[in-house]
Amino acid sequence: MHEFQIIKKYFLKLSQNNKSSLNLNDDVFFDKSKKLVVSVDTYVQGVHFINFKKPDLVIKKVIRSSISDLICKGVSPKYYFIAGSGNRNFFSKSNLNKISKSLKEEQKKYGIFLCGGDTVLSNKLSFSVTSIGFSESIIQRNKAKINDDIYVTGNLGDSYAGLSILKKNISADKKLKKYFESKYYLPNLHLNLTKKLLFFANTSIDISDGLITDLEKLINKQNLSFKLKLKDVPISKNLQKLIILKKLKKISLISKGDDYEILFTANTSKSRIIKKTAQSLGIKISKIGKICSNHEKSQIIDEKGKKITLKNKGYYHKF
Amino acid sequence: MHEFQIIKKYFLKLSQNNKSSLNLNDDVFFDKSKKLVVSVDTYVQGVHFINFKKPDLVIKKVIRSSISDLICKGVSPKYYFIAGSGNRNFFSKSNLNKISKSLKEEQKKYGIFLCGGDTVLSNKLSFSVTSIGFSESIIQRNKAKINDDIYVTGNLGDSYAGLSILKKNISADKKLKKYFESKYYLPNLHLNLTKKLLFFANTSIDISDGLITDLEKLINKQNLSFKLKLKDVPISKNLQKLIILKKLKKISLISKGDDYEILFTANTSKSRIIKKTAQSLGIKISKIGKICSNHEKSQIIDEKGKKITLKNKGYYHKF
Repeated sequence: MHEFQIIKKYFLKLSQNNKSSLNLNDDVFFDKSKKLVVSVDTYVQGVHFINFKKPDLVIKKVIRSSISDLICKGVSPKYYFIAGSGNRNFFSKSNLNKISKSLKEEQKKYGIFLCGGDTVLSNKLSFSVTSIGFSESIIQRNKAKINDDIYVTGNLGDSYAGLSILKKNISADKKLKKYFESKYYLPNLHLNLTKKLLFFANTSIDISDGLITDLEKLINKQNLSFKLKLKDVPISKNLQKLIILKKLKKISLISKGDDYEILFTANTSKSRIIKKTAQSLGIKISKIGKICSNHEKSQIIDEKGKKITLKNKGYYHKF
Repeated sequence: MHEFQIIKKYFLKLSQNNKSSLNLNDDVFFDKSKKLVVSVDTYVQGVHFINFKKPDLVIKKVIRSSISDLICKGVSPKYYFIAGSGNRNFFSKSNLNKISKSLKEEQKKYGIFLCGGDTVLSNKLSFSVTSIGFSESIIQRNKAKINDDIYVTGNLGDSYAGLSILKKNISADKKLKKYFESKYYLPNLHLNLTKKLLFFANTSIDISDGLITDLEKLINKQNLSFKLKLKDVPISKNLQKLIILKKLKKISLISKGDDYEILFTANTSKSRIIKKTAQSLGIKISKIGKICSNHEKSQIIDEKGKKITLKNKGYYHKF
């Protein structure tokens, strides 16, 4: 059973009569009357991060994954709580020092404050992070309109290349290794874009599970389909290099997730303001496809104009 | 290093310039301008609950432990988020059904709503619960005054007796077994008392780690001491029976924690209104001691008028 089925079958009824929960079908909880936005996520070693050899980087990745949920919805994060479970080695002075230093840097970078948390002994390392922000409105899932353009920020696939290098599934020279590993650990969140998104995005999500999976999630309650042009999906020059060097397939790199870029749709009339916003903020924002009616099937068009069918779309948490 | 030292050394500085965090020295976070109160806690198998043979009861205990933090501060909980980590057995249909049913019952009993959460695969079972409420004000720690009376709600020690029976450290007949195990799993929270507390309590805490430990926590930043009368510490008739039957010591049973009763101090002038409130709500509230100046040492007076020194005061989370 994957997580959607579990939520639908066992937990959806518990949130009924409570509009704020967004039917448990969004990444955040939003209480409009209190202007309160909350995200809760758990990150487990071996699932969400490969090991704890670099506590300073892991902790940054965990915090960024959490606040990314708010930032992609048009909400600036303000507070965070972190509950860490781990064994005695995890709570060593050296690790605690590194964690504390990393958190301090993240606080400065994103204007957030530690507000509480918990530490518990466990033989398995995990972190639960609660992030809180305040906003009059948020960009919800499932609010796409037919003919909307589909946009994505930044570049995709760098993080997965980094993970593959860390797992030694791909080899790379020192320079590329450093570049991709840094992309894996330190996703670049677009805090300065978040409030602007409210002006043009109809619906949005951050890419944590993979471009295709998250695009499907974004419109999973709507009778809509999508058309993506693979050639328009933005990748870095370094990834282009790696693809040629290692004879990799672009489609398999950009649909694996952990990118934490923002995927959103907007009316075609917003095209100009989006371009201007991207320029003024110095953020790459790429138009990668269109939202279509349900009469058509969702399709991905490759560089040669052919339709691609995906076997493994992205990352579903299965149980 | 125990948890206070970890917080002080590594995390306190991260919450500086942010009054709402209450210097990370309280069980809740309170943003006065937003009227927001948040509690985040993690509960791990083997630490906070002994096993998962009774998922229906464990889940209730976990939820009550979490909202207890708000209730003891004068705040009604409204929303909760639950992140569960566990293996495939944990996510069985039978368990999910039981968890869902228990959550539904808790929601009805305490007027709370599930607002989101997360499920992750892990070989170690744990839950992180975030509880949220809204309040103009809260009762903080470290606001006791000299000569305040010390009060506690309900009875203490039943939960620890239940744990000891479950662990087979104490034997008991079927009836007593059922009584104490239920007290361990299902602490009785006083939701109807919470708003009244704001009128008379100077400072408050819920008893999770043990009467003595939590009393010390309650005034740990104040130059104060306490005087407790053991004979006034309330216990149930069943516990009285067990103490005689098994030749146990009252002091060792009432200072072990997991009671989730409310410990608070109040000015002596509030004595009458507290008595009246207790009567009208049908809640047992007992006066068990006094707050004294720092010139005296904290003391516990036993039934015979002798001072008791405690070796193991309660439960500190050590790392």
